[in-house]
Amino acid sequence: MKILAIDTSNRPLSVAVLDDDTVLAAITVTVHQKHAEYLLPEIERLLAMADLKPTDLDRVVVAAGPGSYTGIRIAVTTAKTLAATLDIDLVAVSSLETLAANVPVEGALVAPLFDARNQNVFAGLYRISGGVPTPVIADAHTNIADFLKAVTEYAEPVWFLGNANHFADLINTTVSAATPRISPWLNLPQVATIGLLGQQLDPVADVDRFVPNYLRLTQAEAEWQAKNPNKKDTESYVEKI
Amino acid sequence: MKILAIDTSNRPLSVAVLDDDTVLAAITVTVHQKHAEYLLPEIERLLAMADLKPTDLDRVVVAAGPGSYTGIRIAVTTAKTLAATLDIDLVAVSSLETLAANVPVEGALVAPLFDARNQNVFAGLYRISGGVPTPVIADAHTNIADFLKAVTEYAEPVWFLGNANHFADLINTTVSAATPRISPWLNLPQVATIGLLGQQLDPVADVDRFVPNYLRLTQAEAEWQAKNPNKKDTESYVEKI
Repeated sequence: MKILAIDTSNRPLSVAVLDDDTVLAAITVTVHQKHAEYLLPEIERLLAMADLKPTDLDRVVVAAGPGSYTGIRIAVTTAKTLAATLDIDLVAVSSLETLAANVPVEGALVAPLFDARNQNVFAGLYRISGGVPTPVIADAHTNIADFLKAVTEYAEPVWFLGNANHFADLINTTVSAATPRISPWLNLPQVATIGLLGQQLDPVADVDRFVPNYLRLTQAEAEWQAKNPNKKDTESYVEKI
Repeated sequence: MKILAIDTSNRPLSVAVLDDDTVLAAITVTVHQKHAEYLLPEIERLLAMADLKPTDLDRVVVAAGPGSYTGIRIAVTTAKTLAATLDIDLVAVSSLETLAANVPVEGALVAPLFDARNQNVFAGLYRISGGVPTPVIADAHTNIADFLKAVTEYAEPVWFLGNANHFADLINTTVSAATPRISPWLNLPQVATIGLLGQQLDPVADVDRFVPNYLRLTQAEAEWQAKNPNKKDTESYVEKI
């Protein structure tokens, strides 16, 4: 099975091309957020390096949020367009799970988090089980102190990944169990790891109607809901627009 | 410190550009061994993506063997040429250590190995200590059975990396302590990890006279030594030629 995996949900851009368990080519770039400019050329280049045409692909795996609105939309729109035009499977994975998959330690508790400003984070807690991150605390947009409080209840060492260094003092004073030393390399999405898992995951049932998992309303959505309180649960802003 | 890290010592090609602890861009390609054709363009491209010129570099880190003769020579020659012309530090790392650096588990015993055919391997045993692989059994060109016998004396779980899947049955029957499940991603060199360590390592004292660590004589060398037995210890074939 030929797999293309992409993640631009935060500052890094990560693209990988795989053939079953073989990673053919993988790139991670952190320098600038020209995701819209770089993503398609990188996909083309890695496919060419792998001697593959887009029509050789069997599925696309995309990190579908949470993260930057713009970044998520770039990856998800690209993945949906490829899946629809090539008529292949689309697999969506949490961007936090993508990061958690970097930890190759069976049984480990992993807390990937992205800084969402004002002491807020996008964060989840995963346990590596059978080589795969499985959710323990669901991904959420939450206050960092609340998240750490929930994590400490497990009284186990936790691998904090992502923007954890933004909250290093708070993590060190809150989480009593020793947290492993993390290589900066583990803080970056390497979608090859999710591409490897992507063979076993269930594809999205309806590619056209698939929407990213922002986990937080945009300002426009919040304003629309304030103006249309009775439609809050029955009509999605994204669909309306 | 701006670092360029390269490894083409086996089938994969891996290039990374770093600024201190920040990985700016990193690529790993496994598809074909056009290392001579791909290495320089990849270096140029990753530097350009990182908004760096070659003259911005402070050091080059190279995986200097063991592995494929041709592959090692391509990376080492490129690294030496860059270090000499830019007048910057050259740091040489064992290609096996580069692989061992993929394991982010403090205290773990890691056995990276490359298949050298006829039941022979290039292999070493490392312990991850302070986040860095430190040699336990020195890199050697050896018989797989002998290597596994030496490893089992530690009676600990061992992370076998690289071409370990070529010897899976032998490893499973010989090494009694449970070996962790390895993601195929860990079997590939990701020189970003060695680039991260490369800041603390001592540079090569004499760049011009630096030679790769093949750990095995080429056929030409073996024949030359057979014809010149008295010069075996005093004169190197490589220098002679």
